[in-house]
Amino acid sequence: MRISELSRRSAVPITTIKHYLREGLLPPGRATSATQAEYGEPHLRRLRLVRALIGVRGLSVGTTKELLHAVSENKTDTHQLLGLVLGARPATEPGPDAASEAGTTAPGSGDTDALLSEMGWSVSEHAPARHVITETLETLRSLGLDYDWRSLLPYAALAEQTATLDLDQLTDTADPLERAERAVLLTVLLEPALLALRRLAQEDESAKRYGA
Amino acid sequence: MRISELSRRSAVPITTIKHYLREGLLPPGRATSATQAEYGEPHLRRLRLVRALIGVRGLSVGTTKELLHAVSENKTDTHQLLGLVLGARPATEPGPDAASEAGTTAPGSGDTDALLSEMGWSVSEHAPARHVITETLETLRSLGLDYDWRSLLPYAALAEQTATLDLDQLTDTADPLERAERAVLLTVLLEPALLALRRLAQEDESAKRYGA
Repeated sequence: MRISELSRRSAVPITTIKHYLREGLLPPGRATSATQAEYGEPHLRRLRLVRALIGVRGLSVGTTKELLHAVSENKTDTHQLLGLVLGARPATEPGPDAASEAGTTAPGSGDTDALLSEMGWSVSEHAPARHVITETLETLRSLGLDYDWRSLLPYAALAEQTATLDLDQLTDTADPLERAERAVLLTVLLEPALLALRRLAQEDESAKRYGA
Repeated sequence: MRISELSRRSAVPITTIKHYLREGLLPPGRATSATQAEYGEPHLRRLRLVRALIGVRGLSVGTTKELLHAVSENKTDTHQLLGLVLGARPATEPGPDAASEAGTTAPGSGDTDALLSEMGWSVSEHAPARHVITETLETLRSLGLDYDWRSLLPYAALAEQTATLDLDQLTDTADPLERAERAVLLTVLLEPALLALRRLAQEDESAKRYGA
């Protein structure tokens, strides 16, 4: 299909598609003349994925590029691929601070280490998610709440069950690239829905406890 | 204390504190002269809360104002208050579209209704979290994934257990205003940590299944 049809079918403006092509977020089409190219169904699908990651999840162009690059480069090793996918953090999340990037231990990370050790989880030293937990604990404490890392243990146990559900959903595709794409979708795009479910469940639980 | 000490103890610049005072995010101090005012510990605590909501969670000044207003106006009815707190949505979440704001049914919301009905949850018609679930299902489908609302049922069951943990943490404070503040902290500020726990658990589960 021409770029105009790609634009129509994806509801992405032509100028945006050209921007994605320049940024390497979308592979080039098959040149049919000096100024025209032909695009296929894989382009449409990739374009929708890019739109979902940038438009819906608010990832930066740079993070999206890294993530897609990781997906296409690691077709064989599912564990390594998932690690890269899970390590990609949304642009809105707080990043690791300079200290942890320099390889030194961030203040307060001992609590996160204790939590991971108690759960028996095997995760990489540099997973950005570690820092998110450390930072959350510090924020709650700076607000005067006596919040212990042990309070997160029951949440961690539920996260374990959630992760089992997540990975079960990846097993029904044999193609590694498709599995990687599903992993991106189900880890990154499901996040807002999981938080939404928690809020709705809170409202229901609140109605049961305190409702008239 | 003077505004300079408030700034020092909160690590918030004086110009930012003045901005929060003008926006009504922070109540005025007790005037001691035409140009000076005295602030107390409640100001410091409120200032830290505002910083956490805006700086850590990325809420807009407007959403933060609404949320704090709701907290201070509803000291007595815990359920109503929690509803307001849970209804406040981060600036980064997709808002309800024009159609649902006008009171008509958003396309695709039937699936979300079915999910809530299957769970037996009692939640308000206009909870923004409903829309988030509808939008997620639509995004996944637009990407060519055959994703049924029933796939969310086991996640909803885990969300129910999470909500029970959440509300259990509110019961150890009798003061309604303090309980409201805790509700804000534990619903809004815990969100990134819960997603981080899921990612770490996914990495661990991935290592168990696919690791060398």
